Amino acid sequence: MAYTLRVEAVQAVGSVPILEAMGIRVVEVRAGFAAAELPPEPNMNHFGVTYAGSLFSVAEMLGGLLALATFDLEGELAGFVPLVKESTIRFRRPALGVVRASASLPAPEVDRVRADALATGKGEFVLEAVLTDAQGEVVASTTGTYQVRRLG
Amino acid sequence: MAYTLRVEAVQAVGSVPILEAMGIRVVEVRAGFAAAELPPEPNMNHFGVTYAGSLFSVAEMLGGLLALATFDLEGELAGFVPLVKESTIRFRRPALGVVRASASLPAPEVDRVRADALATGKGEFVLEAVLTDAQGEVVASTTGTYQVRRLG
Repeated sequence: MAYTLRVEAVQAVGSVPILEAMGIRVVEVRAGFAAAELPPEPNMNHFGVTYAGSLFSVAEMLGGLLALATFDLEGELAGFVPLVKESTIRFRRPALGVVRASASLPAPEVDRVRADALATGKGEFVLEAVLTDAQGEVVASTTGTYQVRRLG
Repeated sequence: MAYTLRVEAVQAVGSVPILEAMGIRVVEVRAGFAAAELPPEPNMNHFGVTYAGSLFSVAEMLGGLLALATFDLEGELAGFVPLVKESTIRFRRPALGVVRASASLPAPEVDRVRADALATGKGEFVLEAVLTDAQGEVVASTTGTYQVRRLG
């Protein structure tokens, strides 16, 4: 099952044309963790650094990816979808070269979200993502509020 | 001068390939005001609604546009560039169809930012952007912190 979910998570990115246009590549996804990379092209702005909206995107999409790999959206949470409610991004320094974004959700939080979703039809979680350059320097960070929510 | 700056503002969008790939179109830009539109394609996600990162982008770029059209970055503020420091986006409802984003900076704020920039080399401002669908319903809103800052 975990393997299937990972494949689905990667396919979910491929199914959003603009994420594919950004060249975003999923590098790791497993229960409670997701990481992706963003290349400089075609994401550079007219100052020669990576555009804010592309940095936002590679961090934001980790929430959906992580949810797909963490919660059993085909089994006990069938009919649930991951949604983003709100997100804040802080820009720390100009982003040059390939940027890596990663985010993790601790196991107790996973259990709490799963229990909330089963009990109420909605499990909410806050995800912190860190964006680093090739030297490991933090270029930006995000705090996103997500839900896995029963549709309809 | 105002005309030149407007043309430059539009060119600035065109010079960020990923904004062009999103199909973002500047619809109005003048001192203290900027508006742009985002088409559904290629910005839809796998749920058939506009992707969060594209909504963020069409709102975020208004800060740079507005700065270019509002401050005399070729005259008294030559050598200054607009930067985004932080931004929060709140998603209100699924975005369908063409989305319009607009933001304005009141004249007294413009004067304050200009004076700060001249006095200290840095003028900071907070810009609220509203994103609406074709029916005028708010689909999202953003609060961004920007600076016009002297380089070097």
